[in-house]
Amino acid sequence: MRFLRVGPAGSERPVVLDSDGTARDLSPLTIDIDGAFLAEGGVERVRAALAESVLPRTDIAGRRVGAPVARPGKVVCIGLNYVDHAAETDTPPPAEPVVFMKAANTVVGPDDTVLVPRTSEKTDYEIELAVVIGRTARYLDSPEAADDVIAGYAIADDVSERAFQHERGGQWDKGKSCETFNPLGPWLVTPDETGDPQGLAMRLWVNGELRQDGHTKNMIFGVRHIVWYLSQFMVLDPGDVISTGTPAGVAFGANDFPYLRAGDVVEVEIDRLGRQRHVLGQA
Amino acid sequence: MRFLRVGPAGSERPVVLDSDGTARDLSPLTIDIDGAFLAEGGVERVRAALAESVLPRTDIAGRRVGAPVARPGKVVCIGLNYVDHAAETDTPPPAEPVVFMKAANTVVGPDDTVLVPRTSEKTDYEIELAVVIGRTARYLDSPEAADDVIAGYAIADDVSERAFQHERGGQWDKGKSCETFNPLGPWLVTPDETGDPQGLAMRLWVNGELRQDGHTKNMIFGVRHIVWYLSQFMVLDPGDVISTGTPAGVAFGANDFPYLRAGDVVEVEIDRLGRQRHVLGQA
Repeated sequence: MRFLRVGPAGSERPVVLDSDGTARDLSPLTIDIDGAFLAEGGVERVRAALAESVLPRTDIAGRRVGAPVARPGKVVCIGLNYVDHAAETDTPPPAEPVVFMKAANTVVGPDDTVLVPRTSEKTDYEIELAVVIGRTARYLDSPEAADDVIAGYAIADDVSERAFQHERGGQWDKGKSCETFNPLGPWLVTPDETGDPQGLAMRLWVNGELRQDGHTKNMIFGVRHIVWYLSQFMVLDPGDVISTGTPAGVAFGANDFPYLRAGDVVEVEIDRLGRQRHVLGQA
Repeated sequence: MRFLRVGPAGSERPVVLDSDGTARDLSPLTIDIDGAFLAEGGVERVRAALAESVLPRTDIAGRRVGAPVARPGKVVCIGLNYVDHAAETDTPPPAEPVVFMKAANTVVGPDDTVLVPRTSEKTDYEIELAVVIGRTARYLDSPEAADDVIAGYAIADDVSERAFQHERGGQWDKGKSCETFNPLGPWLVTPDETGDPQGLAMRLWVNGELRQDGHTKNMIFGVRHIVWYLSQFMVLDPGDVISTGTPAGVAFGANDFPYLRAGDVVEVEIDRLGRQRHVLGQA
């Protein structure tokens, strides 16, 4: 199943795409797609409702799409998790996952305007496979146990301000948490429809030019390992989002790509997870 | 006014202490003390209700106290913000605020058990003045404008695992976000009752031994500067918590203090903001 939230920011309605791609209104089942919905078996209730064909069709053509999960409690990110990206930033591959955070209020819809912060000269893009947590994860016994707590997957653009991240005092969070810095979606895709999370090609374009052309098979630490690992350091709650790192091709690093400016158009695509298109604005 | 939340974890009820210290039930006015309550003028409604003496007394003796604000959207922390603490960790005073984050689900009540993480050998304490945001702050014009967005102050213990923070991959968040690592409260104290936030003595004891004996006048960056500064990098929402750094005396650094172990008792006190007492347990 593919879950999405459709409507104006702050008043999105929950929708599911059935196996034919038909949009069906989830409002009879839940007021929103959020941590509580995921924790309380919402996905299985929707599956049953689809099997019984009781959910009404809804027309989403031309409507704004929000982030596919409302109000995540936290956004945890993995840094330098692709060999090619570590190399282009002149950093040795990490011995264990590098963990940082984005403020959760950075999350916006996949096609919403992304704002270049005031004073920014180094706003950058990062295509990432995002994992959405469906059940509480605390000291998982093994990477395999991660399967039980993953609700699904989505596309994230981990927008980053490189001067704020690297030149303003040591910790990365300062360059990761600016307003609108986390386009998420369009869909939350369940694991059965995503297939192997290490089997997804991923591509990002700026103004039509292909900048990132990666594949999740090149992650240094795979999805199961990351979820298991994080659960040793923090409690992951339903609705939390984990961004699993970006492949090569960002502006920061060895490339000669320019940073983002107002008016630029970023398109982001991951196999089976859909496509984002966001235009840059100025804060 | 002093706001607090009383009752079992997850079902606390809102309470205010009036000028005589009498506990009054806020349930007739709000279901909780959270970002929405603060954003919608809740503090002023309570002030008016107290003036009209319409709030019923409530007996809180012997009852559990929760964190004074429910479900903060984020917890932003300032590192190395006291000259004495920067010196004891052998770090030069920062040129601008060092910013990192704690997962918001680390927040617990001031007297709740704090869990030493599994495999931890370096669990440490940090007394901090916490600022609670009451109105959205985005690109504030000046440090003085911070006064308009601060709902009040509370005590935080920014519990930290030093090996996770410094020896496991570069970014600090991994050592800051463990379960129960943010005792907050007992009270959210309004600015009028707190007085000058740079005029507060602060003390922390472990098993009765005074370890931290600091004063907010020794902050490198004061509260107004921090709130203004953060608002240039992220949007601060009502209910967000900012921990403003810790003075000297932590176990990590130049001292010969032992790290925390299950059974240890930590007591934390800041002038006019009350007192915490939490016992360490084992995760």
